[in-house]
Amino acid sequence: MNVGIICEYNPFHLGHRKQIVRIREDFGADSGVVCAMSGNFVQRGHPAIFDKMRRAEAAVRCGADLVLELPAPVCLSSAEGFAMGGVSILSRLCDGLCFGAETADAEALSAASQALLSEDFSPLLRERLATGKSFPAARQAALTAMGLPGSLLETPNNILAVEYCKAILAQGSPMKPLPIRREGSYHAQTPDAANPSASSLRLQLEQGADISPYLPIEAARCFENAPIHTLQAGERAVLYRLRTMTEAEFAALPFGSEGLWRKLMHAARQEANLEAVAAAVKSKRYTRTRIDRMILCACLGITQAQMEAEAPYVRVLAFNDRGRKILKAVKKQGFFRNAGEPVDHPYQDLERRWENLYPLFRVDAPGVPGGNLRERLFYPPKFTNP
Amino acid sequence: MNVGIICEYNPFHLGHRKQIVRIREDFGADSGVVCAMSGNFVQRGHPAIFDKMRRAEAAVRCGADLVLELPAPVCLSSAEGFAMGGVSILSRLCDGLCFGAETADAEALSAASQALLSEDFSPLLRERLATGKSFPAARQAALTAMGLPGSLLETPNNILAVEYCKAILAQGSPMKPLPIRREGSYHAQTPDAANPSASSLRLQLEQGADISPYLPIEAARCFENAPIHTLQAGERAVLYRLRTMTEAEFAALPFGSEGLWRKLMHAARQEANLEAVAAAVKSKRYTRTRIDRMILCACLGITQAQMEAEAPYVRVLAFNDRGRKILKAVKKQGFFRNAGEPVDHPYQDLERRWENLYPLFRVDAPGVPGGNLRERLFYPPKFTNP
Repeated sequence: MNVGIICEYNPFHLGHRKQIVRIREDFGADSGVVCAMSGNFVQRGHPAIFDKMRRAEAAVRCGADLVLELPAPVCLSSAEGFAMGGVSILSRLCDGLCFGAETADAEALSAASQALLSEDFSPLLRERLATGKSFPAARQAALTAMGLPGSLLETPNNILAVEYCKAILAQGSPMKPLPIRREGSYHAQTPDAANPSASSLRLQLEQGADISPYLPIEAARCFENAPIHTLQAGERAVLYRLRTMTEAEFAALPFGSEGLWRKLMHAARQEANLEAVAAAVKSKRYTRTRIDRMILCACLGITQAQMEAEAPYVRVLAFNDRGRKILKAVKKQGFFRNAGEPVDHPYQDLERRWENLYPLFRVDAPGVPGGNLRERLFYPPKFTNP
Repeated sequence: MNVGIICEYNPFHLGHRKQIVRIREDFGADSGVVCAMSGNFVQRGHPAIFDKMRRAEAAVRCGADLVLELPAPVCLSSAEGFAMGGVSILSRLCDGLCFGAETADAEALSAASQALLSEDFSPLLRERLATGKSFPAARQAALTAMGLPGSLLETPNNILAVEYCKAILAQGSPMKPLPIRREGSYHAQTPDAANPSASSLRLQLEQGADISPYLPIEAARCFENAPIHTLQAGERAVLYRLRTMTEAEFAALPFGSEGLWRKLMHAARQEANLEAVAAAVKSKRYTRTRIDRMILCACLGITQAQMEAEAPYVRVLAFNDRGRKILKAVKKQGFFRNAGEPVDHPYQDLERRWENLYPLFRVDAPGVPGGNLRERLFYPPKFTNP
């Protein structure tokens, strides 16, 4: 059985390895573990703290068999788009999709997903949005109105889990949803030794602390001396873009509906720094994450149209022998391309642009453009010399 | 008599006031002193250390009557273009042009200028360039070949002085060249108490030193607590631009002839930081300043075509009563516009872009876009309430 994981590994830590170990306990030691991982930019609208090649290598050294790159427009989508993109990629290779959630009740998650996709749901949601409720609150209320537990959508991992289930249903994916109960807090500020949160580890890294106690030793070695990246470090690059965009470019941004792009345009032309820009655009109606994603899309030149288009191919970042075999079965389709492999497609120009910009977020000093493009995919040496 | 000065005042110091005092000693206490000063970006391809409004105020508080802004495309031109732009503006208002030089021999400077403009000069220059000489060396040799002292073009202020004289001749300007011998080294690293160099003062400022001993007290007050700006501070903004420019945009840059734009394009796509980009493009043939200017033009979006076009209007940054009277005589022409005054012309969009980008070079933190656009021109209060 091949089990897929949609992930960011930002950075890879003990909790992530625990999930991989658990998959092999539950589904057999010979199960394939295939990760669809965010590349150099992540869901919260920030650059990844370590680059994708290092994070992919850490995953394979810690038990994953194959790491594929979620295209940047997928990573920077809403939770729904993120799930749809990940499921669409993993459905080509996997029989199951494993994800952490506050509940391990697959039935409840599936029932909620079916309700959210049903025709009855939209009018109920619209009614609640019209009362001025935020989108998450309106969605919970609408689900409750359908006789299901709206509280299911209160916690961050359940919300994402429901999106995975929805994507599986909507796409008729062959993957079975495999929720496992996630322990520890997702966004705790100080790391919990057994179940650290990625955000607490990023905070530690930004403060120059040693996070190796919270990582598998193999991952710690991958990240040793690796440069860290933050939005703050690239602030002036992002501001340059925001201050030189035309009105048409703002209008073409994703997440810009209901005049949000215009609010962002005015803020970008008035405010001194990114924090002030985001604060000026923020309102009860729009989450801060949505605004952060919109700003990063502006920086990367990702339009609404590009966000909606499916990527023509997906990059393979790392694998071991088992991962290579999993890939071989479908490789002929040409959908999976090795990291750094030239592809004669206009999408490659977009990839280059993103790769050239990521090193501007490096904290210590700007890095060479497209550094990751010059790296080969990771394949552990012990497998090449048995 | 109205005497013009083409200047940068980056920053205004004791030597600059000495020049203004000297003008009134030589041409009468009631002489008008009109400055055509670089705005927020200067000839060496860097942002000005203090913003233009503060520098213009310092000049008027220290004896200048009227400060006009040299348009950014003039500031970022070659020495020849810089002189042509400044002379063209000041010719509308002044009878003389005063400039410092290593020699005060107006005859020698004029003779050299005439030779450089003559038909005989071009073939002599081309011959010397063909031997692989750099442009400055070839020009000296060609002047010597015409029986004039080529050594005149060895020193930086003489070179600029000759450009001023050439511009006056070429434009049939009513201004008389008024060279004065400049004391002290132009680019000394440590400030000379009596004749500090602007570059030594910038170095002091970047190191956090107090430069007030080298400034007139009125100028020191203007610059007290004023934020400083460096190219280094805006490095990631400039790199963002360089990493996202299309081939056509590189080809449209000024200073890009002989394939230099292509060299810059390749360097921008390979090198990690601005120093490495400039070093990769630098050769015996091209001065570092030319490359720095080209990079700043890229950042500001200034093309060769914009560099060649004359600005449709010029901004007045500061004046006193005498300056206002000088201006009044020609104000009806509509060529001089007050700082911050809206002008219905596409050139204003370019000005906005430059004003929005300058605060990204602020050292302490990025400043609000277009901060200078919200300021009124400086008019000393003592003149308004006599």
